Amino acid sequence: MDSLDDLNRRLKQFAVERDWEQFHNPKNLVMALAGETGELLEHFQWLNEAQSATLDAEKKQQVALEMADILIYLIRCAERLDIDLVDSAYRKLAINEGRYPRDRVRGDARRAEEY
Amino acid sequence: MDSLDDLNRRLKQFAVERDWEQFHNPKNLVMALAGETGELLEHFQWLNEAQSATLDAEKKQQVALEMADILIYLIRCAERLDIDLVDSAYRKLAINEGRYPRDRVRGDARRAEEY
Amino acid sequence: MDSLDDLNRRLKQFAVERDWEQFHNPKNLVMALAGETGELLEHFQWLNEAQSATLDAEKKQQVALEMADILIYLIRCAERLDIDLVDSAYRKLAINEGRYPRDRVRGDARRAEEY
Amino acid sequence: MDSLDDLNRRLKQFAVERDWEQFHNPKNLVMALAGETGELLEHFQWLNEAQSATLDAEKKQQVALEMADILIYLIRCAERLDIDLVDSAYRKLAINEGRYPRDRVRGDARRAEEY
Repeated sequence: MDSLDDLNRRLKQFAVERDWEQFHNPKNLVMALAGETGELLEHFQWLNEAQSATLDAEKKQQVALEMADILIYLIRCAERLDIDLVDSAYRKLAINEGRYPRDRVRGDARRAEEY
Repeated sequence: MDSLDDLNRRLKQFAVERDWEQFHNPKNLVMALAGETGELLEHFQWLNEAQSATLDAEKKQQVALEMADILIYLIRCAERLDIDLVDSAYRKLAINEGRYPRDRVRGDARRAEEY
Repeated sequence: MDSLDDLNRRLKQFAVERDWEQFHNPKNLVMALAGETGELLEHFQWLNEAQSATLDAEKKQQVALEMADILIYLIRCAERLDIDLVDSAYRKLAINEGRYPRDRVRGDARRAEEY
Repeated sequence: MDSLDDLNRRLKQFAVERDWEQFHNPKNLVMALAGETGELLEHFQWLNEAQSATLDAEKKQQVALEMADILIYLIRCAERLDIDLVDSAYRKLAINEGRYPRDRVRGDARRAEEY
């Protein structure tokens, strides 16, 4: 978990130095993550799909920092719960490969439950 | 972006093989990310803060997979927008270090705007 | 749908006068609703459960306006989809009464699926 | 708050009968509201804007019940915080009328801060 590893260490240090770990339980961190997700949504809510793919430089910069906030809280929450994010993502990818066989879902985005 | 790099490549391949990139514009991906965030919240909404830090093995497993979904959509969205997630997180961390000086915020979790 | 009826009419007029109905499709409105939900979460993320129930007057005022935003987008979205919100809430309440029999769930907040 | 008044009374009774008011503090209720918002988003994430406005009957039914869940938690949370939702919505509408003058924003959905 190389690059995320260093980031994780730095983020933990940031919290410890400010005596903020007392607030960083998973319940609170998950709420904070969802709050940042709301801010990310606000950048896209009135754009159409094509516009959402061609942000100007300033907007792209703002969006990058909102996405950073989400990654930050995701890493903090994983640290508190002792979860390996990257490993979990590979496991989820394997599950999705079983759930959505290539030939059966090609070009079709309906949710898994709807099949 | 080492470990995330390989994951990014695998996730893109997964989408391409299913002809799903047509649905994977940033607007849709941000909605999907927020949908997964909602599922993560549901695991914690009736737990108190202490309980949220001591999940049993089965619940921890489910939570890990929800967090994986969030990471997956975050990576997909960053790929579509050509954003470097880890680099953005370090930039955000530097901003936060300026915004929340250690000595002024120790033990105090009020939001930045409230100072 | 008395009081909500008048509010619905006023909100529609507000959108029409600004030529905003072109943006008010359900997909966009649901994103806007979720963005406001994120703002609401941010007010509570670092409070413990007891603090969340005893907001000071200024914070309570801010929270009331965030909740108003959610109600506003909920009403707008229901209008676009021709959904009766209050009627749907009574139907959902009836479903919940069947799903969570009083004697079986008393004092237990586990999610329905976990029974 | 007529129609919402009766709903509020019924929802409170539902919680009291199950001894669930102990879980219904604003922090938890706001999380639950956000969880339901995530479920609502999931119905729309892969639809385009036009499709989102023309749901088939079954999907519309599901969406109506998700919206009901949001209204239910909004009402519960308002009750716990002693907030009048409809009154707050009218106050927010008045604020928006000042913030977005008709002639200046016609046909333009940029966020208020961006003016």
